Amino acid sequence: MKTVNELAKWLLEHDDYLILTHRRPDGDATGSAIALCLGLRAVGKTAHIWANPQFTPRYAERLDGLLTDTVTDETTVISVDMATEGLLPINGDRFEGKTRLSIDHHPSNTGYAAHTFLRSDSAACGEIVWELLEELGVTPTKEMAEAVYIAVSTDTGCFRFANTTARTFMTAAKAVEHGADIAPINRALFEIKSRGRLQLESRLMANMEFFADGTVAIACLPQTWVEELEVTEDDLDSISGFPRTVDGVQVSVLIRDSEPGRAKMSVRTAAGFDASRYCGYLGGGGHKAAAGCSVEGTLMDGKRAIMDVLKKENVI
Amino acid sequence: MKTVNELAKWLLEHDDYLILTHRRPDGDATGSAIALCLGLRAVGKTAHIWANPQFTPRYAERLDGLLTDTVTDETTVISVDMATEGLLPINGDRFEGKTRLSIDHHPSNTGYAAHTFLRSDSAACGEIVWELLEELGVTPTKEMAEAVYIAVSTDTGCFRFANTTARTFMTAAKAVEHGADIAPINRALFEIKSRGRLQLESRLMANMEFFADGTVAIACLPQTWVEELEVTEDDLDSISGFPRTVDGVQVSVLIRDSEPGRAKMSVRTAAGFDASRYCGYLGGGGHKAAAGCSVEGTLMDGKRAIMDVLKKENVI
Repeated sequence: MKTVNELAKWLLEHDDYLILTHRRPDGDATGSAIALCLGLRAVGKTAHIWANPQFTPRYAERLDGLLTDTVTDETTVISVDMATEGLLPINGDRFEGKTRLSIDHHPSNTGYAAHTFLRSDSAACGEIVWELLEELGVTPTKEMAEAVYIAVSTDTGCFRFANTTARTFMTAAKAVEHGADIAPINRALFEIKSRGRLQLESRLMANMEFFADGTVAIACLPQTWVEELEVTEDDLDSISGFPRTVDGVQVSVLIRDSEPGRAKMSVRTAAGFDASRYCGYLGGGGHKAAAGCSVEGTLMDGKRAIMDVLKKENVI
Repeated sequence: MKTVNELAKWLLEHDDYLILTHRRPDGDATGSAIALCLGLRAVGKTAHIWANPQFTPRYAERLDGLLTDTVTDETTVISVDMATEGLLPINGDRFEGKTRLSIDHHPSNTGYAAHTFLRSDSAACGEIVWELLEELGVTPTKEMAEAVYIAVSTDTGCFRFANTTARTFMTAAKAVEHGADIAPINRALFEIKSRGRLQLESRLMANMEFFADGTVAIACLPQTWVEELEVTEDDLDSISGFPRTVDGVQVSVLIRDSEPGRAKMSVRTAAGFDASRYCGYLGGGGHKAAAGCSVEGTLMDGKRAIMDVLKKENVI
């Protein structure tokens, strides 16, 4: 399926939709599902979103009236923002081999669905959904506009990340034109941090160690802090990137002991460095700019191991 | 002057432009001045930007070749983003009563210039400049596009603040379409913080006090920290709002002793509270959501004074 027109046609030809989101659904998955579900209903279709038990409470109100946990043989199962069946919701094993259509923006999409609409130059799946709504002739409501705004803003770190394009801004502009009230959304998603998260960042910063003229930062995040400050996994969102927000830092390592007896390292690097290569030494891997690995032992063991690697690579 | 068309016409009819920015120029003032200067040159005009000694080093390269510190009687003096003559650059007394045209978005513009083009529903002056470039028939270059992007993104906190409109996003979309390379700009302006700033935030958070079930936060910022951590005034940008980024905080106070013998309080409030009213008790004032005041004495004296006010007002 190549064009949004073909995508719209296919959707108009079928009915009784069930929309899947991936496990630990983020703003893009959730927002895209909501906007698509409402859009399909607007053109007279029956449409529901699969009750993914990991939807965060933050979006509960927006999902109200859209969820279902039943499915029949006639149901047309489609997915949004889901690159592989390995990411099916934790209560979604039954959908293996059952997805009729995948709407996605991940270049790594495995083609698990019968049909795939993939646009990998989209910053967010929400961009595709917005265009689809236009193609379907749906007049976007405030609810749809806000759902798409949540999708595109969260997947771009509020338009900060390198994936942001002119089309991303254009989608946001249209969402606002169609009534999206973005100020409270922005404040909740991008401005406010929980007291626990801020206290945790405070401790991370106070204990962060710098090497090689401040170009390398290593921070340990003991699980005892997580418990003591009562921070949730939601609070810890993208904490791995925190040491890289310090001016001058090119290579950052965050070490956690969330799994007892293991030290897990998240490595983030700027251009000219290779996180994946460093993590490879310790049996891990990932991308050039972001990779991970782990060793047996304590936080200190992890720190020693990754520092040995960085020394071997002449980074420190 | 009501329409962008009239504004463009006026600019085409004059020549030999000198563009003023306000004291302590921010991203909007600087970016608007750069884009306007380049745009005027693109239509064959002579145009320069007044060498405001307070331009931050961050924008030095972009200002290269645009600055002047000479002015003649024939010079057409115009200003961008400057609401009042009280904000003339620290080396700009000579321009009192001399501004021919003010291009601005502040509702508080005093009308100090012979002509004023004011659009107070613009999030940034840069939005106006972009429309003006279009009206002048200028094909925006990468330099102009990036200058306007800096203007609109900084004045909206990277599209987070409540002043962001569909037009803001549209302007950003067009800037990207015209070659603005926004990823490095976003990282430098919105992602990276200096080590000193982060260490300062860390201390602020560790010492912040909460009252009334966490809805009120009070933080002291001793000048000794500023000196010890070698943080600059640039680093301290919008630090007053920091306690308000904690989830649940409705009323926040930041107290500084940057002026010896005085405690200066910055109060920030959510809807339903009145910062201006609280500061009024201590001889200060401002807006409902953001106000300031000061008392003689130490940080502790300041804290005591503002706490007395908050008790009187049943806030704590």
